[in-house]
Amino acid sequence: MRADRLDAFIVTHLPNIFYLTGFSGSSGIVLATRNGAILFTDQRYTIQAKQEVTAAQVKIFRGSLLKAAGEQLGQRPVRRVGFEAQHLAVAQKLTLAKAAGRGIQWFAWDGKVERLRVLKDESELATMREAADIACSSWTETLPFAKPGVSEIDLAAEIEFRMRRKGADGPAFDTIIASGERGAWPHARASRKLVKKNELVVFDLGAILRGYSSDLTRTVCVGRASPEMRRWYGAVLEAQQAARQVLRPGVTAEQVDAAARDVLKRAGLARKFIHSTGHGLGLEVHESPRLGRGDHSVLRAGTVVTLEPGVYIEGKGGIRIEDDALVTKSGAEYLTHANRELIEIG
Amino acid sequence: MRADRLDAFIVTHLPNIFYLTGFSGSSGIVLATRNGAILFTDQRYTIQAKQEVTAAQVKIFRGSLLKAAGEQLGQRPVRRVGFEAQHLAVAQKLTLAKAAGRGIQWFAWDGKVERLRVLKDESELATMREAADIACSSWTETLPFAKPGVSEIDLAAEIEFRMRRKGADGPAFDTIIASGERGAWPHARASRKLVKKNELVVFDLGAILRGYSSDLTRTVCVGRASPEMRRWYGAVLEAQQAARQVLRPGVTAEQVDAAARDVLKRAGLARKFIHSTGHGLGLEVHESPRLGRGDHSVLRAGTVVTLEPGVYIEGKGGIRIEDDALVTKSGAEYLTHANRELIEIG
Repeated sequence: MRADRLDAFIVTHLPNIFYLTGFSGSSGIVLATRNGAILFTDQRYTIQAKQEVTAAQVKIFRGSLLKAAGEQLGQRPVRRVGFEAQHLAVAQKLTLAKAAGRGIQWFAWDGKVERLRVLKDESELATMREAADIACSSWTETLPFAKPGVSEIDLAAEIEFRMRRKGADGPAFDTIIASGERGAWPHARASRKLVKKNELVVFDLGAILRGYSSDLTRTVCVGRASPEMRRWYGAVLEAQQAARQVLRPGVTAEQVDAAARDVLKRAGLARKFIHSTGHGLGLEVHESPRLGRGDHSVLRAGTVVTLEPGVYIEGKGGIRIEDDALVTKSGAEYLTHANRELIEIG
Repeated sequence: MRADRLDAFIVTHLPNIFYLTGFSGSSGIVLATRNGAILFTDQRYTIQAKQEVTAAQVKIFRGSLLKAAGEQLGQRPVRRVGFEAQHLAVAQKLTLAKAAGRGIQWFAWDGKVERLRVLKDESELATMREAADIACSSWTETLPFAKPGVSEIDLAAEIEFRMRRKGADGPAFDTIIASGERGAWPHARASRKLVKKNELVVFDLGAILRGYSSDLTRTVCVGRASPEMRRWYGAVLEAQQAARQVLRPGVTAEQVDAAARDVLKRAGLARKFIHSTGHGLGLEVHESPRLGRGDHSVLRAGTVVTLEPGVYIEGKGGIRIEDDALVTKSGAEYLTHANRELIEIG
């Protein structure tokens, strides 16, 4: 804030509020100044905020928190104020600015907390390892249910139940179970479709633990994989290994993507790989960096990213293999350890 | 749009996009003109959009959808364009406006789709009844697990597993299980805390089914309820019945809240009821109207709201009873039918 000569910073993005203050409620605004921070929340969170928040003063308000925060700003000798333009709706910004009154200059000050969040400390990594273990063991234990006739949604139920029983606060996102043709939709939520014999099944799941997410994808064949399926699987696994090989401090996000993409290009599958190779992971399932074309950010030790190349063949199915990897001083290390080889069930 | 002389309307709020087009993906923008609508999405959703979307033309883009939508606008003879100021971040609005170029006048056009969504048709109501049934039976079947020594998170696991097995797309929100003192946090997510004998346990849960949410809260006593707990419970139940009694077409949202609040005031519990009486329910868990002070919207037949008075006693616990109610031509009807009497377990 000093470098940009800001007198105050209004934080409205909940993962950033959690990171800065420890508050996990769904309604809050932080007003940070160079002297400290105030968390504004409502009466539903009085007791919770008292217990969770150590790094900020807590103020409880009825009605609009934006108005309350704006009025507080207006009463202070502040002029230059940062806000999260990526995370504050146009109408909310108007409410805030109106309550603060004239005389304040507003600056879009995005990505500042996110930049701190990219590098995980030991305590964050311990939680992320645990979240990764929960996802892996829940998936492994669910495999015996993956038989012809089971519905995708029932497989999701088994996985989510196990994640919960192992202590997860919930699924990190809508669990994807995509069997047969549906595997060609990269974001197919589990449906009522029944798994058929000799179909590929994509499992994409994650657990939230104390705010932190894991994100795991595995693809299995229920029955016998055709030679074509084996070839696709081998290419995707090789693409992931290529990304894993180049992942280390100093490479750019784009370079990691290129390593995976090159393998699929050589296999003639470049046009079937329709998303980026991965993304940062932490308090959000998708955070910086994006391992894709055009992201030139240089990776540093302490960053956790997913590596998740995939191929999607309309009418036939999809294959994706995704692990969570920590950039270490000397290279990278997987946080997820579930079996990566092609499993044929039954 | 005609009334406000708008040439186009940019829709960015996903529940509104689903309502208008049927598209359920996580990345999309709709450009609506008086001649029809275009859905912009990315390659991950090519096949899904083809299957789901009937009421709009689908265009697939790489990169920023806001930029793509803005550029399309810029190529058309449009001048007055509406956008969702409540649902478009300041930075996104800039991207959109920049891509569209000069010559366009932007209008905050909020709540238009939401207003359509307030009145549910028969097909929506059929889904909402089913979502309500899933929540109720999943809760009822989980009650036998509510014994001293069980963790809150394990109770959540049992409920969520049953909701999934009954066909839910997932929980509508983080399941709340709040036992003993934690019951005094209205928004306490299930934690590792173990349930103790003679504690009240608040269960707040919901299922998402084909996009629509249910929302149910019940409070039980694991053991014997003290006379004080019985008094609180009776007052909350009476408050809910009072709200149910006044709920009908023509009353205002605020009047329904006042009916519940008056009962708790007479019981000396007004200051322990720290939130509003309920909220609209549908594609979002919280939508219009808000059954609270200051909301003067007049209720109409076809609206679904929650009725959820509660009392929260720091250090002792909380009680909340919540049902989903449909405003009918002659009054109101509960969609949730789980037992509302005080249950003492064991």
